[in-house]
Amino acid sequence: MKIKHNDLVLILAPDNKTYLLRATKEKKFHTNKGILKLDDAIGKEFGDSIVSTLDTTFLILEPTIEDRMMKVKRQTQIIYPKDASMILLKASIGAGSRVIETGLGSGALSIALANAVSPTGKLYTYERREEFIVNARKNIEDAGFGDCVEYNLSDAKDGFKEKGVDAVILDLPSPWDGIQSAYKALRGGGRLISLSPTVNQIEEAVDHLEKEGFVFIETFETIQRHYLVRRGKTRPIDRIIGHTGFLTIARKANKQL
Amino acid sequence: MKIKHNDLVLILAPDNKTYLLRATKEKKFHTNKGILKLDDAIGKEFGDSIVSTLDTTFLILEPTIEDRMMKVKRQTQIIYPKDASMILLKASIGAGSRVIETGLGSGALSIALANAVSPTGKLYTYERREEFIVNARKNIEDAGFGDCVEYNLSDAKDGFKEKGVDAVILDLPSPWDGIQSAYKALRGGGRLISLSPTVNQIEEAVDHLEKEGFVFIETFETIQRHYLVRRGKTRPIDRIIGHTGFLTIARKANKQL
Amino acid sequence: MKIKHNDLVLILAPDNKTYLLRATKEKKFHTNKGILKLDDAIGKEFGDSIVSTLDTTFLILEPTIEDRMMKVKRQTQIIYPKDASMILLKASIGAGSRVIETGLGSGALSIALANAVSPTGKLYTYERREEFIVNARKNIEDAGFGDCVEYNLSDAKDGFKEKGVDAVILDLPSPWDGIQSAYKALRGGGRLISLSPTVNQIEEAVDHLEKEGFVFIETFETIQRHYLVRRGKTRPIDRIIGHTGFLTIARKANKQL
Amino acid sequence: MKIKHNDLVLILAPDNKTYLLRATKEKKFHTNKGILKLDDAIGKEFGDSIVSTLDTTFLILEPTIEDRMMKVKRQTQIIYPKDASMILLKASIGAGSRVIETGLGSGALSIALANAVSPTGKLYTYERREEFIVNARKNIEDAGFGDCVEYNLSDAKDGFKEKGVDAVILDLPSPWDGIQSAYKALRGGGRLISLSPTVNQIEEAVDHLEKEGFVFIETFETIQRHYLVRRGKTRPIDRIIGHTGFLTIARKANKQL
Repeated sequence: MKIKHNDLVLILAPDNKTYLLRATKEKKFHTNKGILKLDDAIGKEFGDSIVSTLDTTFLILEPTIEDRMMKVKRQTQIIYPKDASMILLKASIGAGSRVIETGLGSGALSIALANAVSPTGKLYTYERREEFIVNARKNIEDAGFGDCVEYNLSDAKDGFKEKGVDAVILDLPSPWDGIQSAYKALRGGGRLISLSPTVNQIEEAVDHLEKEGFVFIETFETIQRHYLVRRGKTRPIDRIIGHTGFLTIARKANKQL
Repeated sequence: MKIKHNDLVLILAPDNKTYLLRATKEKKFHTNKGILKLDDAIGKEFGDSIVSTLDTTFLILEPTIEDRMMKVKRQTQIIYPKDASMILLKASIGAGSRVIETGLGSGALSIALANAVSPTGKLYTYERREEFIVNARKNIEDAGFGDCVEYNLSDAKDGFKEKGVDAVILDLPSPWDGIQSAYKALRGGGRLISLSPTVNQIEEAVDHLEKEGFVFIETFETIQRHYLVRRGKTRPIDRIIGHTGFLTIARKANKQL
Repeated sequence: MKIKHNDLVLILAPDNKTYLLRATKEKKFHTNKGILKLDDAIGKEFGDSIVSTLDTTFLILEPTIEDRMMKVKRQTQIIYPKDASMILLKASIGAGSRVIETGLGSGALSIALANAVSPTGKLYTYERREEFIVNARKNIEDAGFGDCVEYNLSDAKDGFKEKGVDAVILDLPSPWDGIQSAYKALRGGGRLISLSPTVNQIEEAVDHLEKEGFVFIETFETIQRHYLVRRGKTRPIDRIIGHTGFLTIARKANKQL
Repeated sequence: MKIKHNDLVLILAPDNKTYLLRATKEKKFHTNKGILKLDDAIGKEFGDSIVSTLDTTFLILEPTIEDRMMKVKRQTQIIYPKDASMILLKASIGAGSRVIETGLGSGALSIALANAVSPTGKLYTYERREEFIVNARKNIEDAGFGDCVEYNLSDAKDGFKEKGVDAVILDLPSPWDGIQSAYKALRGGGRLISLSPTVNQIEEAVDHLEKEGFVFIETFETIQRHYLVRRGKTRPIDRIIGHTGFLTIARKANKQL
């Protein structure tokens, strides 16, 4: 599977820095180890290398979903892969799923969601700030997921158009604003997931979830710890991200008639 | 979407315990809150409830991928959702991916992998102990993923039949036994992921990965911390799982000719 | 320094279980590896061993402060060494310090505090439940720290008799009940430390501390992770204590006149 | 207890930054909020305040042991309070204890140890690099603990002069170099504590400890997580120190004759 003009590639420098670029004809990319001609990548395969004007070798890797998430142009704090991956599993999102996401932020989570529901599913996004939609949409389309995402300039409080969706993801400062809307949009047994940085938000959200008719509510945080692995000198790294946010998961129980 | 005879359902008891069962006609399930007739679930929707002989209400929920993983019949330690979800994201596995997994264990990870590659992808499993294949296969088929999984009674050391796969997952006591085989089976830029409980295994594995021609190697562990969320009394829970294993991720660079 | 009649000894069994006992003449102690005659320890030194009736060797170790804390007779949840040690350092407690502690609990923290202030300092304890004082006092005296501890059957809300103390430790369900009393008892620059299991308690306490005139307020939790260290098989242990409580530390600023 | 000429004071700025200074006559200290005349602190009490030339109020606090540790002039990585406090408790160090410490580093741990053993105990330090002794000694004396510390320009491998000490603290790149020396210097039941950043060091150290005759060996790490506590917005802080080192604790069993 040869790399073609305009394909996305992840360029790996010798110092383990990475750059997400398009293999566009005549495009040049400046690094502190010389200039790369992206032309050179066209016709090669992932795993091959190209050489800069200063004779340094750079590897051409296939961009993973994580690479695409981490390299979005950021207008907001993004949702990290450690949290995005748990959302996918906890919400049981897969090919064909129909999912609502609000707010949209910079679209990093959307890329992971769109990848998971594609090719047959759909991601419906709601965001009340137009400039966020513009940026996120560009990020999502650049990552190759334009087809399965819909955009709504609208507040979660005002409800969602869809019915019977499999999952609703709330990334809102006041997640309770979206809980009633989510209940109405979800099918029975569907999953609601809320992300919040503060303990007060989860306390308030859980209270609303219980009152609205959600069950099997669970709250946790995910911490990742990287290791420096070298023979005879292996140890955890010194500085880590100590906190991004808490995830709350709940499932919709139908109202008793 | 009404529940049909033989559908998998997750029954939620009032004490938040769950049971993964088939809604089979005339089947009965004994709980400490009375007997459930699974017949009663047929024709209902997820999110509805059924009532036991002791007049206790149980909810019928849709089994998520996580539910299916956690409820497998275990012959081995299983890979937990927190680790499985990171494997999926880091290896960038999605609909259509072709993935090799070895060893097979009890098939919990296979369920998450099969869900992610379906409907168009394929999971090729390698396991040298026949009794593990028998149990894991039953678990995978019970979870509804029989179609996209292949089974090989074979040792990772002896190589994989497939070529150009997107990802290889190694869950082996000596992960280095599978590294050369993985290199041969992967396409350029493809991802290798190894899981190990001890620090010594990751040190040895990373050393082998570097020598074999893998790049962008990363090792981390994922820790999950649950919270007891009640208004005015919110706190982390007392006892947690402190360790399952380390994940090492690497990508295949092609050999320079 | 030979062990004498009635000295406290820590007996270490071959399975790494420990027993805190007195080397009392004619006393016998039953284990699943035979009966120990404590007589045998008298005249020996710490680090020596004694042999049970089933010919198993047990080591005689000197009880550390931690051993004494962990072996108290418990009527309440105790404060763990990981938290007690941070209290000592953060409150800057040393020989000669004058410290107030309330509530008393089972006296485990008191043992660590009394050890730190001895021989010239003083620990003033306040506890409103008499049965806790009776048990804690016995624990503290058994641990050898009877001399430097005073007991008050009284509520933190009703104030402390002492003035100009170096530190006040609050282990109360409503720590704010003791904050004003602590302010009055502390000297300028003195430290207040509050322990609480819930996030709501720390939020409320910090608010009260700021209003009362405390400064340099800091809140954290301490997590300890043990390792199974064996050549070639080293890894974190599986199950850990995920949470005991949060510590809040503050210092008294004098009121501006 | 009024502040006197040359007393150590901790100055707290309005932005919660702190400065450890001497209240020396005519001394001035420049801040971005104006100049402080340290003269002004003399005759005041801890908890009082002084005002800068730009009319900003700074508080005068009593330096705690932690303040003194954290403000040493650093020639090396220092041992953090979270680890120092566990060393004190695990080694059961108190007034009158006789303790050996090697290497000396910048003397931060020495300050905590000296404070704990004073006034009647002794800290014997061993360090093979003279420039470290010079710096650490100045740090220790500045912190007010000159009297109870002795300095030896010598390698742990060459043995310690003292016999029958209560505890030995090893902070060495090859901790096993000091294990035999520690065994000889300790009394029966005495504690050895070793600190190391890598997993390989703890594996090697534990192996040597077992062979040398140490028992009840335990290895752990301590992680501290700070919280941003504000009413309605409480959450863990974003960035934390993920790793400093592992602590291994062991006790000396006497050789059987």
